[in-house]
Amino acid sequence: MPRYALKIEYHGAPFVGWQRQKQHLGVQQVIEEALQKLEPDCGPIYGAGRTDAGVHASGQVAHVDLTKKWDAFRLSEALNYHLKPNPIAITNCAAVDDEFHARFSAIERRYLFRIVARRAPTVFDAGLVWQVNNPLDADAMQKGANHLIGQHDFTTFRSVMCQAQSPVKTLDQLDIQEIQLDGAIEYRFHVRARSFLHNQVRSFVGTLERVGAGSWHPDDVKSALNAADRAACGPVSPPQGLYLAEVGYPTPPFG
Amino acid sequence: MPRYALKIEYHGAPFVGWQRQKQHLGVQQVIEEALQKLEPDCGPIYGAGRTDAGVHASGQVAHVDLTKKWDAFRLSEALNYHLKPNPIAITNCAAVDDEFHARFSAIERRYLFRIVARRAPTVFDAGLVWQVNNPLDADAMQKGANHLIGQHDFTTFRSVMCQAQSPVKTLDQLDIQEIQLDGAIEYRFHVRARSFLHNQVRSFVGTLERVGAGSWHPDDVKSALNAADRAACGPVSPPQGLYLAEVGYPTPPFG
Repeated sequence: MPRYALKIEYHGAPFVGWQRQKQHLGVQQVIEEALQKLEPDCGPIYGAGRTDAGVHASGQVAHVDLTKKWDAFRLSEALNYHLKPNPIAITNCAAVDDEFHARFSAIERRYLFRIVARRAPTVFDAGLVWQVNNPLDADAMQKGANHLIGQHDFTTFRSVMCQAQSPVKTLDQLDIQEIQLDGAIEYRFHVRARSFLHNQVRSFVGTLERVGAGSWHPDDVKSALNAADRAACGPVSPPQGLYLAEVGYPTPPFG
Repeated sequence: MPRYALKIEYHGAPFVGWQRQKQHLGVQQVIEEALQKLEPDCGPIYGAGRTDAGVHASGQVAHVDLTKKWDAFRLSEALNYHLKPNPIAITNCAAVDDEFHARFSAIERRYLFRIVARRAPTVFDAGLVWQVNNPLDADAMQKGANHLIGQHDFTTFRSVMCQAQSPVKTLDQLDIQEIQLDGAIEYRFHVRARSFLHNQVRSFVGTLERVGAGSWHPDDVKSALNAADRAACGPVSPPQGLYLAEVGYPTPPFG
């Protein structure tokens, strides 16, 4: 059966998350139902990352096996037609070989987290950023973040619901970019690892926001990490600033 | 009575436009009702530009006379509280003298129009841009736009509903910026004049998009202008790409 990789963008707000669930609508289900309009017997799709309720994706990747041979561009166009009016778009599509697995072949995930600091409520970015009222200290946040880089036991920054076998992961990048806007400041957290624990990025960001606001010292992040205790984590950030931005593979499926 | 200038941001989608109307909700009415929560006898507000249904503002300016003396920052905070959950935000506020009139003191208006070219439906920018399927020729559009700069009879680019006494206006700027995005191209039209005719910017952009798509030659814009005939205009662009971005005054009210 021909296998296709899909690059997917979605707004997280209307969905219970990526994963199909019995009671509520997951992004996966919406895409599977669009695929079934094209091939009624179409099986499940497999996504690279299981985003939580309210979390967005600009570069989710999934794969699916179809019976017909499709032109990749026509397939993405047909899917986008059937996905309407959901805020989900197939932004790329490619035929891949049977060895490719969106989740298990992935060697890298990149997340973006957006915080916007301004007094007035956000209008155009509402639901797309975590808004805070006051500017944050980006240098202090970066100092705190640097303690997290490398291989660690991330028990502190892991949801108690996390199903990963081990809390030990390697964080390759956590860079904080400060962008001056008209009457506001945006902080972009660029986070990269082979894989993540459940709620890991939001636990990082929520904790680092406390550093940026001056409630925590940057070195408190190191103490929290070393505690290897979920209770040592700062508040978990809300979901609407988080984006699954990119998934890396040994051979990029979209060329 | 102390007079205050307000800088206002709003998402145009839920509103019939800036102006208060009998049957439908205008942005003006929502702000007036928020002001009446602070001062029940508060009179009308005066806006610098009357945006149409669906048109956004990032820098609308209005003024209002109040009876009490307010700290400007407290006033904006109180208004933002009462404006919720409408997508309207007061982003700046200042006490101004009685000579200041948001509409009649203005010497310049700046509009931004955003076109995004990509195949897949927009997700995060839905409702905030005019989406077209194929890339446009920005150089050709700029050549066409250059014919419009200066003082002209803009009858061609004016709604038949326009109430301005004269169709003669001076266009000071119409710059087209091309921004490469991941899998898409954005075209930003920066348009500046002392004042505009009704539907003038959307008539410009809709016509120039035809140039960018190759249906019109850049010099056809000159012929359309010279015709001084509404029938010579290209299609009027949809409203959701348009933003009232800035209003200029001899003495900037917000410092």
